Amino acid sequence: MSNHTLNAAIIGSTGYGGVELIRLLASHPYVNVTSVVSSSSEGTPIADGFPHLVEIRTDLLDGVDAKAIRAKADVVFLATPAGIAAKLTPELLEAGLKVIDISGDHRLKSPALYEQWYKKTPADEAYLAQAVYGLAEVYGDRVQGVDLISNPGCFPTATLLGLVPALAAGWIDPATIIIDAKSGVSGAGRGASLGTHYSELNENFSAYKINKHQHIPEIEQVLTDIAGKPVTTTFTTHLVPMTRGIMSTMYASVIGDRKDEDFVQLYREYYEGRKFVRVRDTGKWPKTKEVWGSNYCDIGFSVDPRTGRVTIVSVIDNLVKGAAGQAIQNLNLSMGWDETLGLNFVPVYP
Amino acid sequence: MSNHTLNAAIIGSTGYGGVELIRLLASHPYVNVTSVVSSSSEGTPIADGFPHLVEIRTDLLDGVDAKAIRAKADVVFLATPAGIAAKLTPELLEAGLKVIDISGDHRLKSPALYEQWYKKTPADEAYLAQAVYGLAEVYGDRVQGVDLISNPGCFPTATLLGLVPALAAGWIDPATIIIDAKSGVSGAGRGASLGTHYSELNENFSAYKINKHQHIPEIEQVLTDIAGKPVTTTFTTHLVPMTRGIMSTMYASVIGDRKDEDFVQLYREYYEGRKFVRVRDTGKWPKTKEVWGSNYCDIGFSVDPRTGRVTIVSVIDNLVKGAAGQAIQNLNLSMGWDETLGLNFVPVYP
Amino acid sequence: MSNHTLNAAIIGSTGYGGVELIRLLASHPYVNVTSVVSSSSEGTPIADGFPHLVEIRTDLLDGVDAKAIRAKADVVFLATPAGIAAKLTPELLEAGLKVIDISGDHRLKSPALYEQWYKKTPADEAYLAQAVYGLAEVYGDRVQGVDLISNPGCFPTATLLGLVPALAAGWIDPATIIIDAKSGVSGAGRGASLGTHYSELNENFSAYKINKHQHIPEIEQVLTDIAGKPVTTTFTTHLVPMTRGIMSTMYASVIGDRKDEDFVQLYREYYEGRKFVRVRDTGKWPKTKEVWGSNYCDIGFSVDPRTGRVTIVSVIDNLVKGAAGQAIQNLNLSMGWDETLGLNFVPVYP
Amino acid sequence: MSNHTLNAAIIGSTGYGGVELIRLLASHPYVNVTSVVSSSSEGTPIADGFPHLVEIRTDLLDGVDAKAIRAKADVVFLATPAGIAAKLTPELLEAGLKVIDISGDHRLKSPALYEQWYKKTPADEAYLAQAVYGLAEVYGDRVQGVDLISNPGCFPTATLLGLVPALAAGWIDPATIIIDAKSGVSGAGRGASLGTHYSELNENFSAYKINKHQHIPEIEQVLTDIAGKPVTTTFTTHLVPMTRGIMSTMYASVIGDRKDEDFVQLYREYYEGRKFVRVRDTGKWPKTKEVWGSNYCDIGFSVDPRTGRVTIVSVIDNLVKGAAGQAIQNLNLSMGWDETLGLNFVPVYP
Repeated sequence: MSNHTLNAAIIGSTGYGGVELIRLLASHPYVNVTSVVSSSSEGTPIADGFPHLVEIRTDLLDGVDAKAIRAKADVVFLATPAGIAAKLTPELLEAGLKVIDISGDHRLKSPALYEQWYKKTPADEAYLAQAVYGLAEVYGDRVQGVDLISNPGCFPTATLLGLVPALAAGWIDPATIIIDAKSGVSGAGRGASLGTHYSELNENFSAYKINKHQHIPEIEQVLTDIAGKPVTTTFTTHLVPMTRGIMSTMYASVIGDRKDEDFVQLYREYYEGRKFVRVRDTGKWPKTKEVWGSNYCDIGFSVDPRTGRVTIVSVIDNLVKGAAGQAIQNLNLSMGWDETLGLNFVPVYP
Repeated sequence: MSNHTLNAAIIGSTGYGGVELIRLLASHPYVNVTSVVSSSSEGTPIADGFPHLVEIRTDLLDGVDAKAIRAKADVVFLATPAGIAAKLTPELLEAGLKVIDISGDHRLKSPALYEQWYKKTPADEAYLAQAVYGLAEVYGDRVQGVDLISNPGCFPTATLLGLVPALAAGWIDPATIIIDAKSGVSGAGRGASLGTHYSELNENFSAYKINKHQHIPEIEQVLTDIAGKPVTTTFTTHLVPMTRGIMSTMYASVIGDRKDEDFVQLYREYYEGRKFVRVRDTGKWPKTKEVWGSNYCDIGFSVDPRTGRVTIVSVIDNLVKGAAGQAIQNLNLSMGWDETLGLNFVPVYP
Repeated sequence: MSNHTLNAAIIGSTGYGGVELIRLLASHPYVNVTSVVSSSSEGTPIADGFPHLVEIRTDLLDGVDAKAIRAKADVVFLATPAGIAAKLTPELLEAGLKVIDISGDHRLKSPALYEQWYKKTPADEAYLAQAVYGLAEVYGDRVQGVDLISNPGCFPTATLLGLVPALAAGWIDPATIIIDAKSGVSGAGRGASLGTHYSELNENFSAYKINKHQHIPEIEQVLTDIAGKPVTTTFTTHLVPMTRGIMSTMYASVIGDRKDEDFVQLYREYYEGRKFVRVRDTGKWPKTKEVWGSNYCDIGFSVDPRTGRVTIVSVIDNLVKGAAGQAIQNLNLSMGWDETLGLNFVPVYP
Repeated sequence: MSNHTLNAAIIGSTGYGGVELIRLLASHPYVNVTSVVSSSSEGTPIADGFPHLVEIRTDLLDGVDAKAIRAKADVVFLATPAGIAAKLTPELLEAGLKVIDISGDHRLKSPALYEQWYKKTPADEAYLAQAVYGLAEVYGDRVQGVDLISNPGCFPTATLLGLVPALAAGWIDPATIIIDAKSGVSGAGRGASLGTHYSELNENFSAYKINKHQHIPEIEQVLTDIAGKPVTTTFTTHLVPMTRGIMSTMYASVIGDRKDEDFVQLYREYYEGRKFVRVRDTGKWPKTKEVWGSNYCDIGFSVDPRTGRVTIVSVIDNLVKGAAGQAIQNLNLSMGWDETLGLNFVPVYP
């Protein structure tokens, strides 16, 4: 490869986020995955649980041991359930690993808010302060050289990339923002439950955790930062009978006289040079399948002069831009590499 | 049967609305479907195009001829594309038939609005004035004895049943209403196009006709009537990769200090005695599959004290309560029968 | 109703077979479901676990107690996992209940075969001898007046209705029969596992239990009975990403010179007067959706003169004709009623 | 890149095969797609019809003109409907292009058979004789340096890779082979019809073209070649409600005393060194999703001593190994490159 080459470990390799990191990193020119880690399945071949990896990854799953991981790897991705990364991070950093946390454990700066929304013990405030929130196209310049990166949630990524430019420009009234979000089922992870049972979800559409979702404070934290004053939002999550994909449909009152084309231009300027955000032409709205399997976030607009509101549609693949892909993008940014390395996937269509 | 017995004809029997009328009316104690009509397939067995009807309906499709239909039937259902019912209705009424129009042609009282949103020639103003809008649980008492009933649209049915009680009570600010609606694919009809192609829709979620959907003026017409002053709304439609089901997720600012349980109680009182609206307990929201194949509309609430907004979730089966089922309910109301006749289907689950 | 009226209990009311019995029996003119029974959820409202039943069934789940059930009911349906019905049946019969067992516990006449294929303790031989196997269109005349009916499995129903007439007529070589079967996911029950996880099954097609499925000896038992000599078959089951529906595609060498139309005629004669089997015209094959939600079994043929084989396609709804529907049909036959009572559902399409 | 670099044109770029070539070739180190061609949409941006390509391919579609294509490209892929490639190939070869035909036009050596099964005018016999059938793991050594390659059909690829080693070894009786094949909907192409309508296919499973599919003579041609004597087979195709994936479940009588592990070993030896065929361990069968988006063909076995038959399960992604992927593999083989170039995709899971 080159003198760039990094070795990577993935903790949580038997979840969907972990296995997506394996898929994507297989194409990265400078990164080798040298350890796949799982506390629950240590010592068994990863391909036993994921037969699509047969003959691709023949190694056994490692246990969770910071020093042993450091002996194999330079960087570690934490693709673990909420509550685990907070516990593991101190020793992983101590062992000299760069840590990219895909879970929600280091996103909220306030331990109290974490406890309230996640119902888990928060990370130490020192680590929360140290962690940089890697919403790549908004805060990407803060990530370079950082050793503890907190990767944004899937809903916050789609939502914030859709709202930030308009909010930063003062074009929408932050008090009026309403977010109606929809996700494929893979966002719920690989755990088996009635809530992920095929016969219960197929030919079904449902709302869940209304006004209770743990991504609400994460979204509000960024909106507040961008607006420069406290922002509270209404956020609803829905489950779509499909595996991958998130759409956030967002509503806000427009300040000033703005048309669709104004929004298109504003967003194209804001995201200039950032390959992974594609702003659609006036009158066109993205579909989730148009970013399937890729790291893109596509955005479209409709301003309604009748109501004075703008409707913003933003889509991502929840497992790529909403998890593993953006984590790799953050690694790239952190290393000072081109942010697109290993992520040049054309969406899979159909 | 009894002296109640009516003979019915269905124009548009080769569409999904027509074929659903056939399914439902097969269980109606007082109605016989004596003529299935299709302009495009006259003279062929209906089971040729719908093999699920083999040995159930062996008759041939009739052509569109008002007198011939009258010779066979007392009531006619119009399950036709927009623009057709407006043309056929005068002669059908003239021939002495009771007409229940499932299309959008007689819903808007203003011909100008119809022309603007439907891009078709409107019905004569006299017929628009004569037609009674059969949103059964709201305007059902106006339907009795009526000969021209306009059956509500699928999105308006789910949306209005979810909004009317709160709006009528003055509990929500009409200027703040935002409606985020999602529909299964059968709402698009049986016509083949890229927009209904399996490989394009499967594992895909999309928004369409944002701020342009022809159900917007229909919804606003009723909201305006209930509020007693002009109401303008934001309404977005999305396509879900499933066949049947509509969910409207609705947002509005709450007037006064109301909790979830207040909304539950208000709605239960409003819909008392109406079997087909089921108001869910506090903290529970309906899923589309829980009304699948049935005439129910299920509604749930979440008031967020942080934002002062209520989120209302309303679901129906678009082909039953959103089309054929409510049309039969309107026939029942019109005849002075129990509104549930022929509609006592338990939702099919799973 | 009438002096015909029976009260029914359903053991296993929280599974898909049980809840489908509730849906179907709600339309039966002579049967009232007076007790829904579940060992795991006794004392809770059935609608808690199945919100589609809200306001339809408001009763609490009863426990498994033969005398208490007898106090409420005349007939009991056993919609239980393998191994349970064998244990419960003696006391239920003893209490004076008519028993219809939807599970596999009383299908095989040989306890040894049951043990080999089910890996469970078999029922007592006396009960296996007493039980009548209710493949309605083949053995229906044996069911009348019987108190212990064993309802056929879903795959055997689709398969045997597709094979029996040709085998009985000596038109196919029993040594050459190969059965390639496909099922929707609801056949796997409501238990949550990786094998029923939406993200694992969606956009996926798989084979399972090849040459090991417990329906193999059930199918062979009937084929042997019909052929009058031992028949061994190859039988493969596949999982289709859909909720309901079974197709058996069957292959056999044709004896004699037979064409498609000969098979059509043979089967129409065999099933004359039996409403629930529909034999398709030459050159037409049924699709699973064409029987969805109904008690039909539809069958089509293709004889290939190039190979001398016939391909037989047979479809059912696994939860209706493959479970709850045929169980009700068996109750009807057992009572001497019209076999179609309560089962006159038009397939739901689309 | 290197002195290896080839420029490629794709005729039929607006179909699923063409657009999949674009996706895959975007990762090929030695190939640039310099012309996307479509007779129907010449002059419009390809991203208009495929918004997932926005900002990825900004070029306009070219018309079908052999000389103009030659000016831009060295090799041309024909991803056209049956009947088109036969007409275009002579002038494309004449212009000096290497031609890889993904359609069925050059697969059958007999023009009469083509006409019988395709109902189209066959290619000239000279071109049929010249074309090399690129079933890569069987006939790959014949492809090197060839200018007219006929890419195998999707069903034949899955089927033949599953049958050839056993047939070549004389382990199965060719007279007993039965092939039960299942495909996702993308195999039917992008054309809109009732047969590709979402509401008709969702929650539905169907058989089609029984004993009439045009892939039958293609399969028999290879089986005959391998067996060294005429082979006739029974072949059934089914449509699965999913977008991608093919499974062939195959049945044959085993010659000699062979166990599962014998088949596993035989196939591993036959495919040694060929990365894209993965033979599963004894007792494990592949699922279509385990090869999704990749060029793999995975195969598993079950020998049943009760019947003396082997059941062979073979899966591919119909658009990759069944079309675009194998076409690139053939280009690689033809150029003397590593056959895996540009095809090292890990299957997308879930």
